[in-house]
Amino acid sequence: MTTTATKAHPFDDAVALAPASDGTATGRTTAAYSNMVGPFGGITAATLLRAVLDHPERLGDPLSLTVNYAGPIADGPFAVTARPTRTNRSTQHWSVELRQDGVVATTATAVFGVRRETWTSTEVTPPPAPALDAVDAAEFPDFIAWGHNYEMRFVEGGMPSPEAGAADESTSTLWVRDTPPRPLDYPALAALCDVFYPRVFLRRGQFAPAGTVSLTVYFHAGADDLTAQGEDAVLATARAQHFGDGYFDQSAEVWGRDGMLLATSHQLVYFKG
Amino acid sequence: MTTTATKAHPFDDAVALAPASDGTATGRTTAAYSNMVGPFGGITAATLLRAVLDHPERLGDPLSLTVNYAGPIADGPFAVTARPTRTNRSTQHWSVELRQDGVVATTATAVFGVRRETWTSTEVTPPPAPALDAVDAAEFPDFIAWGHNYEMRFVEGGMPSPEAGAADESTSTLWVRDTPPRPLDYPALAALCDVFYPRVFLRRGQFAPAGTVSLTVYFHAGADDLTAQGEDAVLATARAQHFGDGYFDQSAEVWGRDGMLLATSHQLVYFKG
Repeated sequence: MTTTATKAHPFDDAVALAPASDGTATGRTTAAYSNMVGPFGGITAATLLRAVLDHPERLGDPLSLTVNYAGPIADGPFAVTARPTRTNRSTQHWSVELRQDGVVATTATAVFGVRRETWTSTEVTPPPAPALDAVDAAEFPDFIAWGHNYEMRFVEGGMPSPEAGAADESTSTLWVRDTPPRPLDYPALAALCDVFYPRVFLRRGQFAPAGTVSLTVYFHAGADDLTAQGEDAVLATARAQHFGDGYFDQSAEVWGRDGMLLATSHQLVYFKG
Repeated sequence: MTTTATKAHPFDDAVALAPASDGTATGRTTAAYSNMVGPFGGITAATLLRAVLDHPERLGDPLSLTVNYAGPIADGPFAVTARPTRTNRSTQHWSVELRQDGVVATTATAVFGVRRETWTSTEVTPPPAPALDAVDAAEFPDFIAWGHNYEMRFVEGGMPSPEAGAADESTSTLWVRDTPPRPLDYPALAALCDVFYPRVFLRRGQFAPAGTVSLTVYFHAGADDLTAQGEDAVLATARAQHFGDGYFDQSAEVWGRDGMLLATSHQLVYFKG
């Protein structure tokens, strides 16, 4: 008889937090989710959400999350403090900070709540897309480590080639899921909301320094919707509204099985140029 | 010779804060901006932004603001604490809390920064609208006090009449400005982002309890753009993406003179029904 040690999925390894006695939790960056500078913003968002999900006083499921990327995160350990700022009957508000050597690197607020059945309507429609298998998987540049944890099949607006030139539109639409596949949960959904390369690359047809300053996620999926989604790819789409003064904003939708809108997300991004 | 005492605009009166010696500032609700329960969410957002703008350590202008409405604000005084969580060379991150009797009622985070000229492009287009004078001013119900501080001229999606019935779309577009007119500044722009009545009223053709849970504003306008806007009306448009489980999300754009996108804004709203 042989036993096989179960190895955590790289995503779970990256967002893992160990509670410390002083109410903080400690985590550390992992090479698998590193970006050009520091970790992938999506994995940081997932980690801060994880801190709330793990908290013994947590009530309900995530409704909204805003993450502010205040400064770079160095490779290595960090401390996460999640504090319930107010607990109501069916909603709960959180304030979260990630520090390294006592210095704040990331802050977040989150609203959690108990979902209850109401009138429902999805007013927007998913972007047109061929079936997953009909779209080729993209190759991600080697120097962007985190990209290798996602299977990305661009329907529109793939990473521009060096000779692409400027584009009139900043829309990217892709089928995307964790690789190796992993059942969708709230932290993974939060990370997927940040999976889009900077819109300014697409518009200008060239790479330039860029980084998310503030990311907001509205979670429309209940726990049952996430279970139904399982390991299937989601259809994710994003576009910018305005570029100027060194910043642009991006709005995104993440669509699941049966045309379910799992999340909408918005971010403000710094860019140089 | 006669002298005339200058009376503050009701907006400035509502967002006024008096610094206290312990680093907090004190404000109070005003009847002019009261809503069905507590104050208009936009005036609270403006007040929290005011707290950062007034802070002696503040660097640059607002880039993004997220306000979480954690609990009701009772008529009367409140304390606002604004704390710089991290100051970089050209950006600064803030955490803000509004308390009454020591209990958190509202939290916010904000990113401020120094704007610098870069490549600029507005990818979205303003909604079609006739000139301001060609649109009638709306009558706001008497029981919603704050509405009387805004001149609203609905181009599309005005407040539904009792016999309106359900609608397929949740879009409202309106010319809107403070009344009496007041030069636009960042707090007023933040408040304008929350000027839309709940989208669920329009979709369902009936009123029901609803309230903003989390509001995010991305400020695209620089200080010069605000000066250029002056007292002119802005063209504001909003729509929902998804309604379900007691919440819906709304995305909005605020357009100024010469087709300038002054701000984009998003919110998650609680509703009953």
